[in-house]
Amino acid sequence: MIYQRVALIGLGLIASSMAHAIRRGGLAGEIIGTARSSETREIAREINLCDRITETATEAVQGADLVVLCVPVGAMGAVAQEIAPHLSEGCTVTDVGSVKKAVIEAVAPHLPEKVHFIPGHPLAGTEHSGPRSGFAELFDNRWNILVPTVGTPPEATDRLRKLWEGMGANVDQMDAEHHDLVLAVTSHCPHLIAYTMVGVADDLRRVTDSEVIKYSAAGFRDFTRIAASDPTMWRDVFLNNKEATLEILGRFTEELFALQRAIRTGDGQQLFDYFTHTRAIRRGIIEAGQDTAAPDFGRGPKR
Amino acid sequence: MIYQRVALIGLGLIASSMAHAIRRGGLAGEIIGTARSSETREIAREINLCDRITETATEAVQGADLVVLCVPVGAMGAVAQEIAPHLSEGCTVTDVGSVKKAVIEAVAPHLPEKVHFIPGHPLAGTEHSGPRSGFAELFDNRWNILVPTVGTPPEATDRLRKLWEGMGANVDQMDAEHHDLVLAVTSHCPHLIAYTMVGVADDLRRVTDSEVIKYSAAGFRDFTRIAASDPTMWRDVFLNNKEATLEILGRFTEELFALQRAIRTGDGQQLFDYFTHTRAIRRGIIEAGQDTAAPDFGRGPKR
Repeated sequence: MIYQRVALIGLGLIASSMAHAIRRGGLAGEIIGTARSSETREIAREINLCDRITETATEAVQGADLVVLCVPVGAMGAVAQEIAPHLSEGCTVTDVGSVKKAVIEAVAPHLPEKVHFIPGHPLAGTEHSGPRSGFAELFDNRWNILVPTVGTPPEATDRLRKLWEGMGANVDQMDAEHHDLVLAVTSHCPHLIAYTMVGVADDLRRVTDSEVIKYSAAGFRDFTRIAASDPTMWRDVFLNNKEATLEILGRFTEELFALQRAIRTGDGQQLFDYFTHTRAIRRGIIEAGQDTAAPDFGRGPKR
Repeated sequence: MIYQRVALIGLGLIASSMAHAIRRGGLAGEIIGTARSSETREIAREINLCDRITETATEAVQGADLVVLCVPVGAMGAVAQEIAPHLSEGCTVTDVGSVKKAVIEAVAPHLPEKVHFIPGHPLAGTEHSGPRSGFAELFDNRWNILVPTVGTPPEATDRLRKLWEGMGANVDQMDAEHHDLVLAVTSHCPHLIAYTMVGVADDLRRVTDSEVIKYSAAGFRDFTRIAASDPTMWRDVFLNNKEATLEILGRFTEELFALQRAIRTGDGQQLFDYFTHTRAIRRGIIEAGQDTAAPDFGRGPKR
């Protein structure tokens, strides 16, 4: 047991997976959960997600030695303000938001000195959302990035690290700015691009939606999975990681234009070289255990 | 048995899957295979992929009542020219290329009047290539689009349709130009975009490759799968579907710029609306049996 009482604020995919993973590992004495929507709280009670579901975040954090903010990035500041007066001395506050600089700016000013604020970001997820979408294995062999704020005692960070390791994750540390840039590359831009491509397909008058759907197995369907992710979460990500996202998008369009020009001018060598190069990264990802080597992710109608 | 003797020219993912699927269904009396590379022919013999492997395409097509061109789009014309004098009267020639207008232009002029040319495109694949990558289930519940040329007798088209249905596929017909536009949306542009995003990640000095690999589970890894596809095949696709690809890329960058502007100006409503809209297409694809509803394609370290 690493914490006596863990309070999960917000009960979506990440929080509900944490509840399952904490139980699986016997990592906390008690798990308290809360969510703004009464429907979400109702479902959480029905599926027995936590030991106790409270009506408000204020109640949830009382007596907790770990508070995890699992709300969309844009809601973190308000929640921090709400719970701040009710936090126990010495408790750790962390979050699971996909951007770190903006979350720190929004949350840190509200928190009293007596608590430890250790922002975090588990790099795991699926396209599903809500309290029913969680499962204990979500974090297995995935990375959690911790971004301890200045003055955090190493013991507090170590304890939080042990919790995540107990949930199956690997833990890394970096600063907030670097985190936001890395994630712009590995997550935020890919999502925006996928949303855009799916939007284009849906918009095109000369190709019907039913054609797009029937013939999606040729590549497009992978984009639709990513573009099925939670809209509120992703709106907040882009609004709060503006700088890095726009920088990477700038790089992306620059390279896309170069390839477009190669297509227009018929420069097959440039295309071939580019396409050969990108295979190596895939091999690295499979060797690092971050994806399956099974063709087509191992899915298929019958396999 | 639908054909007496099927000749597969080129022995990559599609041809080798056809060999397995034709055997599974007992759809041909004999399967002859050939490939330009002696290494490929050697592997094909070793794994007993076909009933007979010939050294040349000329030998392979002799006496065949179905010839399937399974070479990269850019090689189709030369192969057609080579085999043309050796084709049997009344035999059907088809192909599996990802573009249709350019293949018809390259192949049709070489073929004698006495054969039926019925271009085709099975919308199925994985990121793997070569004779070992094939499997019998690749076409199950996937679509094959046939683009019969003018004057093809309906019986010849029906017979080819039956072969594909016997291999598990659904069969549709459309004209070449529409095919190339639909595929630009559902396949060619998604691939180019995925290649570009992976290239950007690899290029970025301030984010290391090992970071890109470790933290790929946040979305990026799906792009790397697509960007691991066969470079020769994809070079030829873009060189031969220039017009439609550039049109769709134009639409794509237009929409991407609109979303980029929404990020820059902080227009959360526009982002939210866009991201909500694209969820519906995903649902359609799952209902149509073209992808799995399992979160994250059902993959994961342990699930």
